[in-house]
Amino acid sequence: MADPRFFEPPKGPFTFAELARIAAATPLNPPEPERVFRDIAALEEAEPDAVSFLLDQRYLEALLRTRAGACVVPARFAEAAPVGMALLVAENPHRAYALLARAFHPLPAFPPGIDPTAQIDATAVLGAGARVGPGAVVGRAVVTGANSDIGANAVIGNGVRIGDDVEIGAGASLGYCLVGSRVLIHAGVRIGTRGFGFAMSAEGHLDIPQLGRVIIGDDVEIGANSTVDRGSGPDTIIGDGTKIDNLVQIGHNVRIGRGCVIVAQAGVAGSTVLEDYAVIAAQGGVAGHLRIGRGARIGAKAGVMRDVGAGESVIGSPAMPVREFFRTVAILTRLAKKRGG
Amino acid sequence: MADPRFFEPPKGPFTFAELARIAAATPLNPPEPERVFRDIAALEEAEPDAVSFLLDQRYLEALLRTRAGACVVPARFAEAAPVGMALLVAENPHRAYALLARAFHPLPAFPPGIDPTAQIDATAVLGAGARVGPGAVVGRAVVTGANSDIGANAVIGNGVRIGDDVEIGAGASLGYCLVGSRVLIHAGVRIGTRGFGFAMSAEGHLDIPQLGRVIIGDDVEIGANSTVDRGSGPDTIIGDGTKIDNLVQIGHNVRIGRGCVIVAQAGVAGSTVLEDYAVIAAQGGVAGHLRIGRGARIGAKAGVMRDVGAGESVIGSPAMPVREFFRTVAILTRLAKKRGG
Amino acid sequence: MADPRFFEPPKGPFTFAELARIAAATPLNPPEPERVFRDIAALEEAEPDAVSFLLDQRYLEALLRTRAGACVVPARFAEAAPVGMALLVAENPHRAYALLARAFHPLPAFPPGIDPTAQIDATAVLGAGARVGPGAVVGRAVVTGANSDIGANAVIGNGVRIGDDVEIGAGASLGYCLVGSRVLIHAGVRIGTRGFGFAMSAEGHLDIPQLGRVIIGDDVEIGANSTVDRGSGPDTIIGDGTKIDNLVQIGHNVRIGRGCVIVAQAGVAGSTVLEDYAVIAAQGGVAGHLRIGRGARIGAKAGVMRDVGAGESVIGSPAMPVREFFRTVAILTRLAKKRGG
Repeated sequence: MADPRFFEPPKGPFTFAELARIAAATPLNPPEPERVFRDIAALEEAEPDAVSFLLDQRYLEALLRTRAGACVVPARFAEAAPVGMALLVAENPHRAYALLARAFHPLPAFPPGIDPTAQIDATAVLGAGARVGPGAVVGRAVVTGANSDIGANAVIGNGVRIGDDVEIGAGASLGYCLVGSRVLIHAGVRIGTRGFGFAMSAEGHLDIPQLGRVIIGDDVEIGANSTVDRGSGPDTIIGDGTKIDNLVQIGHNVRIGRGCVIVAQAGVAGSTVLEDYAVIAAQGGVAGHLRIGRGARIGAKAGVMRDVGAGESVIGSPAMPVREFFRTVAILTRLAKKRGG
Repeated sequence: MADPRFFEPPKGPFTFAELARIAAATPLNPPEPERVFRDIAALEEAEPDAVSFLLDQRYLEALLRTRAGACVVPARFAEAAPVGMALLVAENPHRAYALLARAFHPLPAFPPGIDPTAQIDATAVLGAGARVGPGAVVGRAVVTGANSDIGANAVIGNGVRIGDDVEIGAGASLGYCLVGSRVLIHAGVRIGTRGFGFAMSAEGHLDIPQLGRVIIGDDVEIGANSTVDRGSGPDTIIGDGTKIDNLVQIGHNVRIGRGCVIVAQAGVAGSTVLEDYAVIAAQGGVAGHLRIGRGARIGAKAGVMRDVGAGESVIGSPAMPVREFFRTVAILTRLAKKRGG
Repeated sequence: MADPRFFEPPKGPFTFAELARIAAATPLNPPEPERVFRDIAALEEAEPDAVSFLLDQRYLEALLRTRAGACVVPARFAEAAPVGMALLVAENPHRAYALLARAFHPLPAFPPGIDPTAQIDATAVLGAGARVGPGAVVGRAVVTGANSDIGANAVIGNGVRIGDDVEIGAGASLGYCLVGSRVLIHAGVRIGTRGFGFAMSAEGHLDIPQLGRVIIGDDVEIGANSTVDRGSGPDTIIGDGTKIDNLVQIGHNVRIGRGCVIVAQAGVAGSTVLEDYAVIAAQGGVAGHLRIGRGARIGAKAGVMRDVGAGESVIGSPAMPVREFFRTVAILTRLAKKRGG
């Protein structure tokens, strides 16, 4: 049960039939219809009045021991559940879990209000329902949509545009950018900083003016302390629905499509293009001026030095197709055993 | 000698016998008893009234040239010192050095006081001796122990609990967390941000509410600009005495034991467990849902994709036992020379 | 054309002869002398009244299609340009581009002034023309030169010295440091934090006082959210003209020479020395106590465990000469194909 010091009590309760509808899942072994569910919880912590979920086969054993009153499972594990357990069989159990968790725990409505210590420039226009935290700074000609939430000590630079229902975390700073709606920018994020552009030479490196912006679509998330440089002339672009984790670096002029996922500590160098739904796993890196195709998957710690085709999966540094990479690992291991023995 | 603009003058002076007692070291070649030592200094900078230290054999040559009046050395290098040099022979010379440095340079006592520009919610309870810097924000129902020091422009979110003698750096932000005593949280750290949890699907990635907390034990250090996400339901946990360096990422639901060490730019993905005294060197990464055994060592830049047993040392990506890794490197190098030649 | 919400209109216009002089380039196929150029723009976006530039052969095709009125090209591509195109032939086209871009878009002069919400200690001395943003904190005995610009909510710790024409980004924090002139410190940078120094032992890790400073030369740039720890006794040093990108970690006692370049997410561990003009590409790492020679190049994602000689290029982890590395990659790929087939 979520700590009431930090979270509101769960909504509900819901019946099993309601859970099935919310989760868009197939009910199996329904309990008595008057039975209600009061929260969602992990397998090991769930009480009989909670619904739980199995997302990964590593936790199959916990499924056998859980006290949960019902459980979301993928079809392939429905038979592994204890006999008679109330099940919600889902094609995409992550999605079913998300839908249920959001029903019990919708985003809390925050009270609007501009803290008296916030510094709002007289020319800024804040939309209806705005919240601005203590010490936040909103610059000249900034425009925000409805219900935006600017965290304590965040800094919004001159001219920035922000859409509706945007949340900006504590201490983040944004400049030279246009931000869509329903965007989550976490604490400490830096948007629109000067790209790393200069002419190297023996007389000293000479900075090149960075005259582009950062354009962020709708439904984007950018994780804590990540950095997104503004373009050098062209813009840096992050497409609708893209999710970026913590401590990620996005270089100038990078163009990221829709629905991409970039996991913690990964980096994308200048002018590279990620087509829609590309994924970069944790600590992966993509060199500059490359094209990563639609739905391509860059593995954890991969170092990508060439274009990657649509739907390809690569890993290693230099990155190569996943199957080839693990074959080289197997060969090396065998050689090492033979000669080392 | 430490710059007086930034540091208080050293305490002391101490006699050689006092140094030996403080360092818990064996004295060798004691100088005249009235001789005093006024500071600790590196071998190359030490004057005759300073005690120095040899921690690494790379600096053996500097030991021969040093003007230091005495030197901490490990037993195996005692004979390498110049004849007659006053020595403090220590089993753990790093520890002896730390003890001496802390005797000359104890943590400075800071003047308590709440800066008038800090924003403290009326329901927050700050312990005795608290310091809150300019522009810091302390939210609803926050409770801190004695002598906590909240840096300038730091943000402490609603409901956070903080123990005694905790130091929080400038611009850091904490939310959804319970923090022990004697914890150092450096500038720009982000604690309790939303974990990277969502259901991927073609209809758009769907955020999963993150309902857990971050629980931080006693004597923990978290380096500048590091990020620690809150749990998704279970908590993210950092055990007593664990040291975390700068720009480290700790994912949601990670459980870190006591006395672990995680060096700069390393990352630990969601739900992984580090048992006590595990070490991750710089830029190492551990995938999610793994178990790293007690005292295991993950090498620099390692990419760990499988569980690691207690006491094992691994390196490489995918990580393998250190000895095996260097054998594969040697084999490859030989092959490259043969065919390349 | 740069977005007028964020950028001032370009200076100029300039004639072709003026452009050639500014860029220190050789003019070829000059247009009519009264023709003027109003801005600089990328090949694909340039209008006939703009000058453009070709920096990379990947964009040769765009050169053929550009509407730009003139173009900076390296000598080797002068013949690839459309017949009759007005060209500025430059030995270092990046430098020529930088010079032209700076002529059209010089750094905007900012209006000096101390925001009334900034907290400046009574003992601090700010030079002529200083700007201090809202919520910024300037500590005891801080001294700044002329025209320094301290961003909103930045924190300058006690005793810090800053030279002329320094720009410090939003939310950055500096302590225990001496900073030269014409230094750019981006948003969220942490300078002078405690180095990761402690004695490990079973009784608990024991912090070692960190008594050094950070010394930053002239014309240095440090990217967003990067971290630079202060020395343990010796100083951490960053030489004149060195450029550091985002999310970079510089450990305690590191000494970086003049004109070095350290790209995003790279890290340098404690006490390592980088001689002048050394380069570390993105996500590279250098272990502690090493020496990287003058002009050496550490490749992207390289893990350097040994000294690197002047002028050498290394890559891989463990890092090896570039040619050797790619030979091992080729051998492995061949083996994988043979046995995998």
